[in-house]
Amino acid sequence: MLYFIGLGLGDVKDITVKGLEIVRQCSRVYLEAYTSILTVGKEALEEYYGHELLLILKGADVSDVAFLVVGDPFGATTHSDLVLRALNSGIQYRVIHNASIMNTVGCCGSQLYNFGETVSIVFWTDTWRPESFYDQIKKNRDMGLHTLCLLPIPSLSRGRKIYEPPRYMTVAQAAEQLLEILQNRRDRGEELAMTEDTVCVGLARIGAEDQTIRSGTLQELASCDLGGPLHSMIISGHLHPLEVDMLKLFSGPEGLKTLKMTDSSNYVS
Amino acid sequence: MLYFIGLGLGDVKDITVKGLEIVRQCSRVYLEAYTSILTVGKEALEEYYGHELLLILKGADVSDVAFLVVGDPFGATTHSDLVLRALNSGIQYRVIHNASIMNTVGCCGSQLYNFGETVSIVFWTDTWRPESFYDQIKKNRDMGLHTLCLLPIPSLSRGRKIYEPPRYMTVAQAAEQLLEILQNRRDRGEELAMTEDTVCVGLARIGAEDQTIRSGTLQELASCDLGGPLHSMIISGHLHPLEVDMLKLFSGPEGLKTLKMTDSSNYVS
Repeated sequence: MLYFIGLGLGDVKDITVKGLEIVRQCSRVYLEAYTSILTVGKEALEEYYGHELLLILKGADVSDVAFLVVGDPFGATTHSDLVLRALNSGIQYRVIHNASIMNTVGCCGSQLYNFGETVSIVFWTDTWRPESFYDQIKKNRDMGLHTLCLLPIPSLSRGRKIYEPPRYMTVAQAAEQLLEILQNRRDRGEELAMTEDTVCVGLARIGAEDQTIRSGTLQELASCDLGGPLHSMIISGHLHPLEVDMLKLFSGPEGLKTLKMTDSSNYVS
Repeated sequence: MLYFIGLGLGDVKDITVKGLEIVRQCSRVYLEAYTSILTVGKEALEEYYGHELLLILKGADVSDVAFLVVGDPFGATTHSDLVLRALNSGIQYRVIHNASIMNTVGCCGSQLYNFGETVSIVFWTDTWRPESFYDQIKKNRDMGLHTLCLLPIPSLSRGRKIYEPPRYMTVAQAAEQLLEILQNRRDRGEELAMTEDTVCVGLARIGAEDQTIRSGTLQELASCDLGGPLHSMIISGHLHPLEVDMLKLFSGPEGLKTLKMTDSSNYVS
């Protein structure tokens, strides 16, 4: 049996009781460390699980093998390929689910039902400055839907042949890129899907002890510092009054009253 | 401190290790049983957690109190109101996340990033037959996005003054209602967003030992029997070849080769 076991998002104790029992009885345990990272290291996991963790997936065999995935096993990149290869080799599989960023973003009070397509924002270079994620956000905004923006994480730079320091995108960097796109589109005379005053939410290390949520206008988030990885961001669509009340909880050091909810485009009906 | 603790979707051992430790140290533990249900009863939870569970939320006080929510605490209905009331009373809160249907639907291989707005399907009566969920599905389909359809669950009929037997909507019933809407729209000469041949996925008891997934055309799902609650359904949008391969795993008793992937409208680019 090949077990896919979600680890949740925070530390070693975010594994489910069921998942921990299975890990401790498996003969081999693999850790997927490509699509996301926990806030604790591999060593902390190994000590808590009482198992050495193998970082590279080799072929699964007939004994029980666990494949550990930060968040939920099917939350980020698809592990379908591994499922299909296991089944083709006559190996059964089972999934132990857990929280992932795809559902925990609800912690800021934004209704999960009202999110549109998820968007991945990429690092710009001097010569490669794609704006396609803005167009996806626009589609969601046009329907009054929120957009979850996933930002690059450190491990994504692994496997490149040219050495690059591990880096992740901060909410501030993502906001800056969006501001530049807004200016580009304005210069072209386009009707904008959002403005500098659109309410956004920056989320950092969700599920960890030091998780940080910051709501504010896009302009405000461009200068926020939410600390270490992982970061993600929500571009709000139509906001329900209860969502506004929740977002005010996270509107910076000034407390509950500073969030500017003046952007009428947030109230698409 | 008021703790919001996700229970996951299956049985007592789907709580995280962190969540279980907190439950066992809290002075009072409340169970939210309105928006979803586990496949095990309240008694099984009480025995495993070593705590009596209070079904009705009374005011939180200054001792540690846990509020247990099936799935993720912010996965279904918003508990924002409770958060705001707690903070207004000077009570801090903390969220222990877990899996919810909003992220576990990925287990059938459908990419979570490619879902549009989530849709709630309601039970029709003789005189109340709303079709608005079809229009939401249409918006997603027009953009090539998948749609997660949440179906009514037994506990939603609680609180009504007139006695009705607890009931839940099956995937077959949801598919039948959609088929009728398609016929209505066809009769009116509308361009359809989907057909009887659109690839859909029925999901039952996700996360439980006896979880069942069935892929097929909408027409096929109208006669499927996936057993007890909870059911939910995916209306596919544009399908990636790897998604098709995964869906074929769940295409009924005939095995991997029967799923009709002939609906060209599934391949919107």
